[in-house]
Amino acid sequence: MKKRLFTPGPTPLPEEVIRAMMQPMVHHRWPACAHLLQQVQQGLQYVLQTHNEIMILTCSGTGAMEASVANLHRPGDRVLVAQCGKFGKRWALICQAYGLQVTPIDIPWGEALDPQLVAQRLEADPNIKAVYITLCETSTGVANDLRALCEIVRSHPALLVVDAVSGLCSEELFTDRWQVDVFVSATQKGLMCPPGISFVSLNEPAWERVSSSTLPKFYWDFQQMRKYSEENQTPYTPAITTLYGLKAALNLIHQEGLENVIRRHARLARMARAAVTALNLELFAQRPANALTAVRVPSKMDGIELLHILGDRLGTVVAGGQSQLKGKIFRLAHLGYVDELDVISAIAILEEGLRILGHKFTAGAGLQAAQHLGLEQREDDS
Amino acid sequence: MKKRLFTPGPTPLPEEVIRAMMQPMVHHRWPACAHLLQQVQQGLQYVLQTHNEIMILTCSGTGAMEASVANLHRPGDRVLVAQCGKFGKRWALICQAYGLQVTPIDIPWGEALDPQLVAQRLEADPNIKAVYITLCETSTGVANDLRALCEIVRSHPALLVVDAVSGLCSEELFTDRWQVDVFVSATQKGLMCPPGISFVSLNEPAWERVSSSTLPKFYWDFQQMRKYSEENQTPYTPAITTLYGLKAALNLIHQEGLENVIRRHARLARMARAAVTALNLELFAQRPANALTAVRVPSKMDGIELLHILGDRLGTVVAGGQSQLKGKIFRLAHLGYVDELDVISAIAILEEGLRILGHKFTAGAGLQAAQHLGLEQREDDS
Repeated sequence: MKKRLFTPGPTPLPEEVIRAMMQPMVHHRWPACAHLLQQVQQGLQYVLQTHNEIMILTCSGTGAMEASVANLHRPGDRVLVAQCGKFGKRWALICQAYGLQVTPIDIPWGEALDPQLVAQRLEADPNIKAVYITLCETSTGVANDLRALCEIVRSHPALLVVDAVSGLCSEELFTDRWQVDVFVSATQKGLMCPPGISFVSLNEPAWERVSSSTLPKFYWDFQQMRKYSEENQTPYTPAITTLYGLKAALNLIHQEGLENVIRRHARLARMARAAVTALNLELFAQRPANALTAVRVPSKMDGIELLHILGDRLGTVVAGGQSQLKGKIFRLAHLGYVDELDVISAIAILEEGLRILGHKFTAGAGLQAAQHLGLEQREDDS
Repeated sequence: MKKRLFTPGPTPLPEEVIRAMMQPMVHHRWPACAHLLQQVQQGLQYVLQTHNEIMILTCSGTGAMEASVANLHRPGDRVLVAQCGKFGKRWALICQAYGLQVTPIDIPWGEALDPQLVAQRLEADPNIKAVYITLCETSTGVANDLRALCEIVRSHPALLVVDAVSGLCSEELFTDRWQVDVFVSATQKGLMCPPGISFVSLNEPAWERVSSSTLPKFYWDFQQMRKYSEENQTPYTPAITTLYGLKAALNLIHQEGLENVIRRHARLARMARAAVTALNLELFAQRPANALTAVRVPSKMDGIELLHILGDRLGTVVAGGQSQLKGKIFRLAHLGYVDELDVISAIAILEEGLRILGHKFTAGAGLQAAQHLGLEQREDDS
């Protein structure tokens, strides 16, 4: 049975990325590796729309989140953390692990952060050192309004730190134009690569903060990374094979054009939303992301059983709900190396899974809705 | 020009490992990934000769070193650090970054740690919480006498924490039999894989220490890792592609047999030492490791030029000296996916490089010495 992966990370790998990783090994202090790191650096700057130097880390996205916290603060710093879901909550857990004073903004899961709430909290407390937010909250399928948040935080001395792990390449983001201080992302989502590399973009105000940070760190030390980065190196051996894959993926994105990549994700998301609605299912996210579509499991259906039917029996892996949403939603990702026909395949399988579980809907209604919005709009967009 | 890599990490990749990494992506919460992690766990336990559960981290070896420190201590803990070279010194830098009180044992670079020195320091200070050592000090080519060190630390409440990043698979080590408390290693050395995964083995006394540690950590949190490990998972997305490679490499080691793998490394090291001596060069390490051979650059020769002639002009990359040894030694590694004929190739290229630089030696003397010790002894060993 052909297997298909529709999870919000890791995402499917293009042939070009797999082939690029078949390189013989090179030494990390030799020019071939420096050249590779330089090309990856430039490709990431394009995707993040920034001139900032980007720190390239060998770890998962969570490692880069922790690295950001460890480099930006002194013990006891006050920070504002928007908790729209599991990944917003992760910012708070990391900040707490490092002894920061966290003011949480708790948002009901499925809703987006109201930028005005951030404005109020910042106004109430001029000592807040940073605002931690999530661009695409993968656990709920919500995308936050980054542009509006940037405008609010810009007029306050706090830094804006953005988890763009699953939002990169699927949501609009302009690091320099919108003045995002710190961006964190990783390879295994919109960048169509295996997990193992993550990265952080910091602007000058963020670097100033780094120079006065006193939290303990060694592997995460951005100042060390920046020093080595002058010679296109990393302080410790990077995941060279993954970097070869990343270079190939960045080339693919450059060829398609970043705007087109984001437009494609928006189109795939519209297809998925129209399809599930046509199948008498309810969307979970109030401000849905382009990377994935979160769908409520009907009250009489067993959400875990649905995942197993789709995955084990029909070969198509979608993600379930996390934490308190386990069994209550499923999450169909359309992120990375995914096109209109992939979404149509996913909808076909979803219809089959729903049919097996006795859900009431008009057969083909999802496919029809998706097809209309997908292939026709692709022609219009191009 | 065919390129050959003789560096002490990253090391060359076997075809089997490269091919294994060409798998389509799987989701990290799906049974296929759990099965993969379970197989890697078992393979690592064999290589480390332990029943300990092994924590699998997505990071370079240095990350696993930091994770060990962050999990084993409280602020202000007193620790003993043996500094035989750059990597011993790295233990001290990490411990200092976390506010520990470091008692260093400074060994002249090129010499091994005298186990009696450790005995004296432990006797003098019963409050020492851990002894940090390096099995194979990659910067000097020295292997420390782990067995003797284990016997000494065993009778003291301090934990023994061993950096086996480059020593794994090349030096004898028996985690359980010798009662090593904490072992740290990584994929890109003796394990013949790309960099990106590292791992830590902890015994029960070490786990007890973990439960009382108060240093800040999140991504490095061993207790979280252990919890997820019960279901053969990791808390955060692991470097799945590298894990596929690691599984294949562990299979290769199992097929050859760990004892044979270590015996091969010992044989290759004897070949290299005999060859460089026959070429009128001087060995640098007083207790030489099996993983690499460190060689003094003759006083009239430019050590950096030698590296460039070998690497750029002749296609064979060997490592130079690090820190104060830059230009003063070169390091020929015979680690991982390397056999007798590879060492012979390296010696042939070395002879050519030395000839170009006008070094005095009998042409073919290195090859002759290596051949004698290599292929004949391989027959004897088998």
